[in-house]
Amino acid sequence: MLVVQKFGGTSVGSLERVRSVAERVLERQRSGDRVVVVVSAMAGETNRLIALANQLHAIGQQAGQATGTDSKGWVAPVKRDDPGFERELSQLVSTGEKVSAALLAMAIQDLGGQAVSLIGHQLGLTTSGSFTNARIVSIDAANIHRLLDAGSIVVCAGFQGLDEAGNVTTLGRGGSDTSAVALAAAIEADVCEILTDVDGVFTSDPRIVPTARKLDRISHEEMLELASLGTKVLQIRSVEFAKKFNVPVHVRSSLHLGEGTLIVPETPDMEAVLVAGVALDRDEAKITLTNCPDVPGTIAQLFTALGERGIVVDMIIQNASRAGHTDVTFTVPRAELERAQEAIEALTLEGGEEAGTEVLVDPNIAKISIVGVGMRTHAGVAARAFSVLAEEKINIQMVSTSEIKVSVVVDEKYGELALRALHDGFGLGDD
Amino acid sequence: MLVVQKFGGTSVGSLERVRSVAERVLERQRSGDRVVVVVSAMAGETNRLIALANQLHAIGQQAGQATGTDSKGWVAPVKRDDPGFERELSQLVSTGEKVSAALLAMAIQDLGGQAVSLIGHQLGLTTSGSFTNARIVSIDAANIHRLLDAGSIVVCAGFQGLDEAGNVTTLGRGGSDTSAVALAAAIEADVCEILTDVDGVFTSDPRIVPTARKLDRISHEEMLELASLGTKVLQIRSVEFAKKFNVPVHVRSSLHLGEGTLIVPETPDMEAVLVAGVALDRDEAKITLTNCPDVPGTIAQLFTALGERGIVVDMIIQNASRAGHTDVTFTVPRAELERAQEAIEALTLEGGEEAGTEVLVDPNIAKISIVGVGMRTHAGVAARAFSVLAEEKINIQMVSTSEIKVSVVVDEKYGELALRALHDGFGLGDD
Repeated sequence: MLVVQKFGGTSVGSLERVRSVAERVLERQRSGDRVVVVVSAMAGETNRLIALANQLHAIGQQAGQATGTDSKGWVAPVKRDDPGFERELSQLVSTGEKVSAALLAMAIQDLGGQAVSLIGHQLGLTTSGSFTNARIVSIDAANIHRLLDAGSIVVCAGFQGLDEAGNVTTLGRGGSDTSAVALAAAIEADVCEILTDVDGVFTSDPRIVPTARKLDRISHEEMLELASLGTKVLQIRSVEFAKKFNVPVHVRSSLHLGEGTLIVPETPDMEAVLVAGVALDRDEAKITLTNCPDVPGTIAQLFTALGERGIVVDMIIQNASRAGHTDVTFTVPRAELERAQEAIEALTLEGGEEAGTEVLVDPNIAKISIVGVGMRTHAGVAARAFSVLAEEKINIQMVSTSEIKVSVVVDEKYGELALRALHDGFGLGDD
Repeated sequence: MLVVQKFGGTSVGSLERVRSVAERVLERQRSGDRVVVVVSAMAGETNRLIALANQLHAIGQQAGQATGTDSKGWVAPVKRDDPGFERELSQLVSTGEKVSAALLAMAIQDLGGQAVSLIGHQLGLTTSGSFTNARIVSIDAANIHRLLDAGSIVVCAGFQGLDEAGNVTTLGRGGSDTSAVALAAAIEADVCEILTDVDGVFTSDPRIVPTARKLDRISHEEMLELASLGTKVLQIRSVEFAKKFNVPVHVRSSLHLGEGTLIVPETPDMEAVLVAGVALDRDEAKITLTNCPDVPGTIAQLFTALGERGIVVDMIIQNASRAGHTDVTFTVPRAELERAQEAIEALTLEGGEEAGTEVLVDPNIAKISIVGVGMRTHAGVAARAFSVLAEEKINIQMVSTSEIKVSVVVDEKYGELALRALHDGFGLGDD
């Protein structure tokens, strides 16, 4: 069996844990498998490197600390719309994974195993697009195959590739997941294991929902919806890759050998299960424009302005127009709320002044999403969700549905209650 | 003018200093020069990375800390005679220079300049030999020329190259000096500037000899002798490179714009100066074998044993044999003294037991070397040195001479006194 094992920053967060990972992959190889490992930077290292760039920039600006952290506690890189700067940021930050790859290879050797680390140009991973949010376009796996044939464990630095010109590029936050799945696809691995600090994918967040249970398997489609909705187990692009190239992904614990959750192509029997999971997202904010002039192009003007600033709009609801006016409500990432407001204020909506258009903002919302491929063939999921929430007297502010997902927005203070109610209301806690 | 400027670890030891370096190189470019910069890792970073490898190894050995520092205060890498391990050590340690190169390029950009960092495969620097003590065999400077033509300052990560197979290699301690000189040779730079925390090359160590003065210029040959003798301004291999490829090297301060010392090919007028400098080396130890059996091959057996262990022997003196016995005295690096003793004890010298061969060890010696191309045409340097030392009543334990150098070994406690006496005795303090 040919396996790719990906270990995240926490799993290699100390030298002791690097040693444990080495023991685990070596054991795997000794059991008869061929093993390719993908590693992230040691926990905290990427933030340290980005902070160096931020502090350097701050010295230039003589403006003290220019660093900030985003909603996930990550240090936010300096915002500079400059390819030259982005290039250097990638050269800088990608060193974190190079360090952990070399250390893991050493640890395996210390245990008597054979291991080689591959970084940058040695990986054969070619990307396109921007320097710091690059996309994988091809992988030349000849080097990996040659080393596997020679009996080595191959330790790949995650998160990085090279563009056609040989510049170091990085795949964006969580990019090591994508590296792992893409490498698994390229070498036609039997499975890509994502080893993490949780036991697998759960029906909901166990820290909030005590009855949440681990799923044995889940479809790519369901995982895509859950990954983008706050179940921070896997980077969403890695799931897209897994779906596109039909790579079986196994999310499992790095701390014990128990089975986790298999992410696999959808099979007919999966539809027997109505709902796979329920996710909570507290990273969004709501913006409402009341009394918008209801003329063609007004809404387009609004969302074009947001798109030009790179602000991703999630849910959009436009109420039926009345007397030539309309209300538009949409959600944006909470961290972008201020920039979104600036964008809207800079607009001159035609007829807006006469119509008395007003902008209302609410950062205190929670989005709960119910996901399951079973919805395709079963009606009534939305109705059931509404009645579950009504029983708890939780007011629904927005609803949006897709083929395998129903999302509702509620007041943030009811978010956790709504999550628990929906989880158990759809029978997810039962065994 | 095309210039290579090399900045060491102290010069980029903080983000403030990185910023200062950026200002300096940008100013240089704006004055009309084309500028290639070579940087070391930020001070302390190489030691930090090596310590990671050591600690990881110690976890494996469950033997606590396996780290040590050598005579220069450097953390000594784990001793493992294993190419796989050495390869990973290079992949690991070379990240330090990658970080400082990217940060410096960013700092130049922050100042409004144009800069690109080159690392690993982008440098075009091919090496042979071992992973951690590699030798430069060729440089493909096309990338550098292309970027210079486009108006960029090119910031190269020092200390590293790739072997033919694409493995990352490192050039040994101080290797960034060698990178800089080799790159200067490859791009046919007008000068290679080594920017450091001293003002240039001095007639002796100013911390010991108050009358020491900065040299305006020195020949490659003299610098080679001084570099290998404790004047720790430049890595010796970089001087060999400079000599071989006729690269003018300018050693100057990174803290101010004053002229330093030019290292240039020897010219006839240099011989007018008898002695260029006097250096003190306290890193050696003396070993004497008394009553050695004076049969062919005995001495060869001894030095072969040391050579096999990689112990470099410096001075060797064999006294005239008397009655079939002989005394051999030689010096080795003090840090290797214990290993040298072990090597000697493991030997069975033919006839040694009967002859009563004894091994005497003295770690407390100092070597003072007087260097100057003028010696080639002037006699009497050794004689003058002896009389200077006799005046101070300093006993000479060993003497060795080469074409442009006279070295004497004295008791360590007289080392500094001997240095000062010889420095002023040869008129080096005069203006």
